[in-house]
Amino acid sequence: VSASVMVSIQQLKECGFMALSRVGVPENHIEMTLDVLVTADLQGILTHGTRRLIPYIMRLRSNLINPDPRLALHHLAPSTCLVDGDNGLGPVVGMTGLNEALRIAKKMGVAFVGCRKSNHFGAGAPYALKACRHNMLCIGGTNAPANMVPWGGKDPILGNNPIFIGVPRRGKPHFILDIAMSTAARSKMRTAAERGERIPEGWALDPSGRPTTDPIQGLKGLVLPIGGHKGYGLALAVDILAGVLTGSGFGTGVPSLFRQWEKPQQTGHFFICLNPEFFMINEEFAERLELLLEEIKSSTPIDPEHPILVPGEIEAKNISQSESKGIPFDPDIWKALSGLSQGNYDIEVSKL
Amino acid sequence: VSASVMVSIQQLKECGFMALSRVGVPENHIEMTLDVLVTADLQGILTHGTRRLIPYIMRLRSNLINPDPRLALHHLAPSTCLVDGDNGLGPVVGMTGLNEALRIAKKMGVAFVGCRKSNHFGAGAPYALKACRHNMLCIGGTNAPANMVPWGGKDPILGNNPIFIGVPRRGKPHFILDIAMSTAARSKMRTAAERGERIPEGWALDPSGRPTTDPIQGLKGLVLPIGGHKGYGLALAVDILAGVLTGSGFGTGVPSLFRQWEKPQQTGHFFICLNPEFFMINEEFAERLELLLEEIKSSTPIDPEHPILVPGEIEAKNISQSESKGIPFDPDIWKALSGLSQGNYDIEVSKL
Repeated sequence: VSASVMVSIQQLKECGFMALSRVGVPENHIEMTLDVLVTADLQGILTHGTRRLIPYIMRLRSNLINPDPRLALHHLAPSTCLVDGDNGLGPVVGMTGLNEALRIAKKMGVAFVGCRKSNHFGAGAPYALKACRHNMLCIGGTNAPANMVPWGGKDPILGNNPIFIGVPRRGKPHFILDIAMSTAARSKMRTAAERGERIPEGWALDPSGRPTTDPIQGLKGLVLPIGGHKGYGLALAVDILAGVLTGSGFGTGVPSLFRQWEKPQQTGHFFICLNPEFFMINEEFAERLELLLEEIKSSTPIDPEHPILVPGEIEAKNISQSESKGIPFDPDIWKALSGLSQGNYDIEVSKL
Repeated sequence: VSASVMVSIQQLKECGFMALSRVGVPENHIEMTLDVLVTADLQGILTHGTRRLIPYIMRLRSNLINPDPRLALHHLAPSTCLVDGDNGLGPVVGMTGLNEALRIAKKMGVAFVGCRKSNHFGAGAPYALKACRHNMLCIGGTNAPANMVPWGGKDPILGNNPIFIGVPRRGKPHFILDIAMSTAARSKMRTAAERGERIPEGWALDPSGRPTTDPIQGLKGLVLPIGGHKGYGLALAVDILAGVLTGSGFGTGVPSLFRQWEKPQQTGHFFICLNPEFFMINEEFAERLELLLEEIKSSTPIDPEHPILVPGEIEAKNISQSESKGIPFDPDIWKALSGLSQGNYDIEVSKL
């Protein structure tokens, strides 16, 4: 393992801009895409940051993503909207959906926007953060390629279908929750395997469908949903809202970003935005929220060295650190990204 | 342990009607309350069924619940509503909120209704079922007395704050998910303790805040959220939406239904209803939904004897069975309930 290279935000944006320009993405869509991906990098969600430009651009070049989509917004009711993404880049479709949900909720109090014909849209946290910056609450979700078993099953039918929630705070890090419905990412099992450690019960099944605490067997097998039937039910509900209801792919009908190169991903997303000022004056909401979060922060930690965290604190700390220090990249990934900005497409995506 | 007595739905409703009449609850509120509680019994959620009338009525008699509340509906935006429950029975406040969310969503596409000054409102599943019977999707939540630790903490600051989701199906059991954000109910730990069994990792902390697989230590200690920080974040989000935003109690500010007799519960709920017909024609939604659920049902089970279930199947089976067989009651609980219908209030709630 080689040491990381640190890349400044400016470098990253320039690199991303050139790389996306070369494959025919218009300037406003480049801005939307980089806004989502760079924000994820800043928040410390590196797996879902600008490095995802590599598969995005390879899919653009394979005609699996439309570089210059005509997005259509269908308003069939006053407080809902269906965004047809025309197979555009996921962050373009997703941000269009969120922006529309923010616009509707500002006036109507609440909005539900579904997005169809989209692709991998990055992490949920940048969308939640944007809603908070508009002083809106946000609940959203996206479906994802099937890699998780239904509870009691051993076939991967469901994605880890993340849910993200944002709640605006005043003068404190916004509440940002962005969670996959699987117990643990496969990357955590890989780390445990490298270190020769066991994984906790409840993380994974081995290939024959038996619970395992062996990370190598878990990696060959399948990840489990959080809370057993509970996370299974939540992941299924996200697939219904993001996939079934919007007219997107669902179940096993959402191809992998990295491994399936036959057809577009057909990913679906949904955004519920809620304007708190229609419930109480903003000052009162802010004060009550801080009372709750203060009660939590000041409660007794198990380990005094590890104070209790509120969702969003780590992301906010990462943002302020990475703005000055830059973003760490695996040298091979940075080389590939820089290459894309120069028109070098000799890349094996599955290795990155 | 004595055998259960079977009570018919008719008996149950008559008993509940008389018991609530005696303490001054008006007829329309009795109907709303029994609708929620009897439906929970029918669904097999016995812990949250008509037996909850015992603490409800004892709280009504202690002036902790208002038998004849004036509910107020505040519409500050076209698609939201804040219901002030005037400290009425939880099911009355909750059903008023759901009905308003259904009414708004029918026209506006989506609705968010918050309820304040409420009390324990029963289970979430009866509300989800009602939304489905109106061909609406529903996402809801309620806060609850604090019994769960924030992730990394050892003080009980959060309730298990359930989330419930309903999705209507055609000619099949409606999709009904009703899940607390704790890994397992304390009742499951009690069962394990009685049988001398261990509990899985991740269910509970012992009184000193260490993970335990000993159910006796777990019962003395605290329940953990599903998926660690994930369930913690979801429970906190429910408390923000149901408690903070509505003007209800939150954090440790929601007294226990059974153990705290100083002040009203100040419980809060929220309901998001969504009209699927503003996204695609109902037939298409129904067909796509069945394709997804069929893919799940026909996938390989770990144990061929245990087919994979979709949320709501067990509840639907329970409903058809209990409609003919009646509802099983612990004899002491049925005696207490029958007593309440005759005006016998010599009851120790904590024992039931």
